[in-house]
Amino acid sequence: MTKFAVVGTGALGGYYGGLLARAGSDIHFLMRSDAEYVRQHGLRVDSKNGDFHVPQVNVYSDVSQMPKCDCIILALKSTQNQLLTDLLLPLMHDDSMVLVLQNGLHVEQATREVVGPGRVAGGCCFLCSNKVGPGHIRHLDYGKILMGPFRGLDDTESGPSMTRLATLQGELVAAGIECQITESLTWARWRKLMWNIPFNGLSVILNSSTDKIMAHPESRALAKSIITEVRQTALDCGHFIEPEFIQYMMDHTDEMVPYDSSMRLDFLAGRPIEVEAIYGNALRAAERANVSAPIIRTMYQQLKFLADHR
Amino acid sequence: MTKFAVVGTGALGGYYGGLLARAGSDIHFLMRSDAEYVRQHGLRVDSKNGDFHVPQVNVYSDVSQMPKCDCIILALKSTQNQLLTDLLLPLMHDDSMVLVLQNGLHVEQATREVVGPGRVAGGCCFLCSNKVGPGHIRHLDYGKILMGPFRGLDDTESGPSMTRLATLQGELVAAGIECQITESLTWARWRKLMWNIPFNGLSVILNSSTDKIMAHPESRALAKSIITEVRQTALDCGHFIEPEFIQYMMDHTDEMVPYDSSMRLDFLAGRPIEVEAIYGNALRAAERANVSAPIIRTMYQQLKFLADHR
Repeated sequence: MTKFAVVGTGALGGYYGGLLARAGSDIHFLMRSDAEYVRQHGLRVDSKNGDFHVPQVNVYSDVSQMPKCDCIILALKSTQNQLLTDLLLPLMHDDSMVLVLQNGLHVEQATREVVGPGRVAGGCCFLCSNKVGPGHIRHLDYGKILMGPFRGLDDTESGPSMTRLATLQGELVAAGIECQITESLTWARWRKLMWNIPFNGLSVILNSSTDKIMAHPESRALAKSIITEVRQTALDCGHFIEPEFIQYMMDHTDEMVPYDSSMRLDFLAGRPIEVEAIYGNALRAAERANVSAPIIRTMYQQLKFLADHR
Repeated sequence: MTKFAVVGTGALGGYYGGLLARAGSDIHFLMRSDAEYVRQHGLRVDSKNGDFHVPQVNVYSDVSQMPKCDCIILALKSTQNQLLTDLLLPLMHDDSMVLVLQNGLHVEQATREVVGPGRVAGGCCFLCSNKVGPGHIRHLDYGKILMGPFRGLDDTESGPSMTRLATLQGELVAAGIECQITESLTWARWRKLMWNIPFNGLSVILNSSTDKIMAHPESRALAKSIITEVRQTALDCGHFIEPEFIQYMMDHTDEMVPYDSSMRLDFLAGRPIEVEAIYGNALRAAERANVSAPIIRTMYQQLKFLADHR
């Protein structure tokens, strides 16, 4: 039986970890401020798929108290990646792997640098959830994880074996988590950037929700130009995305409920925003492929300024 | 003796018109809210070159009461250009000309469409002045006009003769206005856009003054990228600007006092902003030359959205 750790028990780690705990997994949560509360009251998830409560949870506020685990689910925001050495290494035995559930492109590289090659997988999460109180998660919609081995910045390393990922997938699915495996994590990350790059950034720069951005002809045209530039950059970096996906992203966003992106929520709350993981890493990939991405670069520069002038 | 009209007596029209009035020119001011006040109290200019007061001024609040004039100085913001037919035609005799002192590229075209070919000159104004009260202008710095004939969107029409512009220049200079003549108004306009496009727009989008934009490494790099793109677009449209002018614009902005651009002042005050004259017309010129200007277009689209969501 896989022994899991969850590092970062927020809206995402609390949701997926809660489902694993409900299913009876051997799972250990690292928490900061919520640890004492959850130790006494357990973990509560209000989900569109059915509310549930896990009364007994293995909770730790100090990583040195935790057991070594087989699979470490990394659910911190990438803006806290300077903590990775201190948080991951004490949890690792010789055969541990890390599943990085962070936003952005090549976000696994920071973990890879800490734990070495062959031990890191990544997952694109299509999840809409919030933390509404200590140990209390509200799951609004979606929840799929698209998971694949991390093969390094240039896709030349080996990641964890597909056999191992298949076993992990089986455990996640058995716990009620929709999970699929992809051969190319980088391809999956680029596809997700086709939403995150336009709408995370514009919602901060234009101080607006996605429905207003889609309703105004100029910002709507800009969103489509950005999506188109992200796709072209992905192609130039060697990852094929079908051209129809551009219009699909527009239609998908039109159909969403009025939505504040996670970056806008972070920005308005004064938290760090994931500019480097989403924009910086995409630009660095473009630079390695010798292609320019002028709108992505403009947004990166604008967001870096805004993050420093709240 | 040239009979002048000033249409739009704000920070710019009030300053230049005030200097002409002080010099004893035959000059007639169209004003809106300030008319009655100025009729009673005259026009006051506090200038770094010496304060002055013109007690008796020819003021009108209705253009139909004004005499026909030889030279009409158009000093309205271009966002009011829908008024041009009503305001200009009653002032024109068969040999009248219009001097358009508005910001942006090809801003003279709207006047040209109203008054016909051969009668329109434009001036790039390098002026720092504010209206601080009714009939009361504060002149902070600069003041030069770089004036040339408007030759149409493709530089193929004839404008007013150089002889006529030389006479006008002489009258302006005699009144204490620094004025130079350029063969290519479009070239002069593009050079000015190399400041206006980066700093007017960024100051609104980033909600910041120019010194803060110059002080942050990412927005500073973005400003330089924009200046570079404006220069390249000018070149692609057939107008040579020396490459050293990019760094000159950066150095010049570094040396400025902390400065709120006119567009930011308009934006914060809830007034219309000159997005079309500065960004829209530059983009349309780029389109006619079949070149893309991705950062300028991005800023245009962002500003159009922001102008509609204050």
